[in-house]
Amino acid sequence: MSAERNLRLVRDDERLARIVWAHLDEPVQGPGLAWVASHGPVEALERLVCGAVGRGSAAATRLAALDLDGALRAMDRHRVRALVPGDAQWPIGLDDLSVGPHCLFVQGHADLSGLHRSGIAVVGSRSATAYGTQTARRIAADLADRGRVVVSGAAFGIDAAAHEGALSVGGVTVAVLACGLDRPYPAAHAGLLRRIAVAGAVVSEVPIGHAPYRQRFLSRNRLIAAATVGTVVVEASLRSGSLNTAREARDLERHVAMVPGPVTSVLSAGCHEWIRSKESSLVTDAADVLDLMGALGVDAQDTRRAAPQREDLVSPEDQALWSAVPVRRGADLASLARASGLTVPATLAGLGRLTLLGLVIRHEDTWRKAPRPG
Amino acid sequence: MSAERNLRLVRDDERLARIVWAHLDEPVQGPGLAWVASHGPVEALERLVCGAVGRGSAAATRLAALDLDGALRAMDRHRVRALVPGDAQWPIGLDDLSVGPHCLFVQGHADLSGLHRSGIAVVGSRSATAYGTQTARRIAADLADRGRVVVSGAAFGIDAAAHEGALSVGGVTVAVLACGLDRPYPAAHAGLLRRIAVAGAVVSEVPIGHAPYRQRFLSRNRLIAAATVGTVVVEASLRSGSLNTAREARDLERHVAMVPGPVTSVLSAGCHEWIRSKESSLVTDAADVLDLMGALGVDAQDTRRAAPQREDLVSPEDQALWSAVPVRRGADLASLARASGLTVPATLAGLGRLTLLGLVIRHEDTWRKAPRPG
Repeated sequence: MSAERNLRLVRDDERLARIVWAHLDEPVQGPGLAWVASHGPVEALERLVCGAVGRGSAAATRLAALDLDGALRAMDRHRVRALVPGDAQWPIGLDDLSVGPHCLFVQGHADLSGLHRSGIAVVGSRSATAYGTQTARRIAADLADRGRVVVSGAAFGIDAAAHEGALSVGGVTVAVLACGLDRPYPAAHAGLLRRIAVAGAVVSEVPIGHAPYRQRFLSRNRLIAAATVGTVVVEASLRSGSLNTAREARDLERHVAMVPGPVTSVLSAGCHEWIRSKESSLVTDAADVLDLMGALGVDAQDTRRAAPQREDLVSPEDQALWSAVPVRRGADLASLARASGLTVPATLAGLGRLTLLGLVIRHEDTWRKAPRPG
Repeated sequence: MSAERNLRLVRDDERLARIVWAHLDEPVQGPGLAWVASHGPVEALERLVCGAVGRGSAAATRLAALDLDGALRAMDRHRVRALVPGDAQWPIGLDDLSVGPHCLFVQGHADLSGLHRSGIAVVGSRSATAYGTQTARRIAADLADRGRVVVSGAAFGIDAAAHEGALSVGGVTVAVLACGLDRPYPAAHAGLLRRIAVAGAVVSEVPIGHAPYRQRFLSRNRLIAAATVGTVVVEASLRSGSLNTAREARDLERHVAMVPGPVTSVLSAGCHEWIRSKESSLVTDAADVLDLMGALGVDAQDTRRAAPQREDLVSPEDQALWSAVPVRRGADLASLARASGLTVPATLAGLGRLTLLGLVIRHEDTWRKAPRPG
């Protein structure tokens, strides 16, 4: 059965086209990403199918080999749904990525649409110390207890401790994988991933059946950074992959926080270096994290205030809208209204206030956050 | 024998007057500090002696009771000399204090005149952990090995470890006490203080025979902060007295650095709080300290650079002069030439360059550092 026939069978042609594209492109690197950006997923796929673009490309080869019916049946079998940009549940933080995913494969019922307000990434070294895992577990538990969604990568060490901490208080947690959702990775975390899917969600941009490769881990890290308000690194050696997540978060103007540890521990050296060079804030507990990343000021501690942020200019009534405005590519009025839960006139009024403050820039019919000064 | 008669016996009347004033005033708080500031030590003392000021004051009572000959003999017996402002060996960093000491009592042969360039305070909690004392010892040893003078308070815990570290590599270390130099405090550190006096100096603004009181400890801390390039706090609970030293250093525009530790340790909580609130830099070892506080750039690490400082504007040839220019009260040309080791014309030329850069302000015949922007 060819992909061409499948396409004609479905009503939600854009969603299906994006599922197809997820099978054809590697994350970040696939040629289809540019074609979809130019023509939309459906037309781009039609151009590939008819040979107008990509003749002889890896994408065309994969398309010819694709058993889409089989892929959709596998999704059903593993209770995996596909979210695409524009879906009400789409984590709009991902729209800040210069190269976002075609779609997200999701196991579990957690609503991902609020991650840009309540999601906090807690990540760190796979070869963590007992100090690190205990600290990650406690911070994650306290964050989840305060209604935050703990997002991590389900790896050994800090990641697993973060998920466990959130689960231990009945909180919501989201694992972002670098492989298909049919294969728990690492295998030893199969049980943990099942519990995460029940209490939250397990997510990947890689389709079912795909193995975790190095590049897919790096791509996965950018999803964790982009989807959330900020990233907390609990333990990281100077060359830890979790610093890659921190770099993504920094580049996307998300908060970055690091937990210190003994100066004698190589597993704290990466955290210390980021704090020392003032690329990251220091946090010691969930209260510190919320002081830095907490929305609406409700979590701010009076006695231990962080340095003023430009967010302090935003009035409480405009906080939800401010959170919804993307950093890089502009969003239109309808999607901003949907993301912020406001009426269209209220959204327009709020955008006017934020524009007057110099916080938001309008370009034609879209709005985005103004670049930070300095 | 009255103080009046003693005064007429000496040639160096200003030095002797200051020694007398040290016996009459409590550090920071004595009324004589203002009189000396207005009239100079000799005339101020003459006015007290003749009853023009301070009639019936505690200072007058103490003056009447003072056995100055006995005090001078005790200084000889304990091999204590008195340094006064303007002495070639005077630590000119003390001139930045709004209320400096009348004089400094010194045991040991270390030249204190370079402390504003090479002195680094390493202080911390008395009830330190093994982690803290080991870290303090290693940092102090490495700093001393790089030619820095480790200044601390000879207290239990971090202070003692810092002195021991410097001594262990044959380095120079200076202990600043809150009591007279005849009484080793704490008594258990009598041997340590003897070794410090041999390898460096033991210093106090409090005369021989005086006991350590709470206020004298606080006053002592300001001397440690003012005399040095910067202060490193190795372990400090949230209410540790060593944070008092850090506050003095910050207020005097000295560098402040804190060593992190496990977030589970209350003895690192004060350090973490200062780093978190961005009042202090984070350092993990002597290389970090020198990267922050090192003079002339010779200690800067290429791969791990700190944020740019206004000191970076100062050319290598003007570094010594820049270090000698005080922050608060201006210094005149002669004293700046003496402190920087330059000829008077070279000093004047350098002051011209620093003034052009906006780093130094001239007021009549004195120069001081311009306030930091922001």
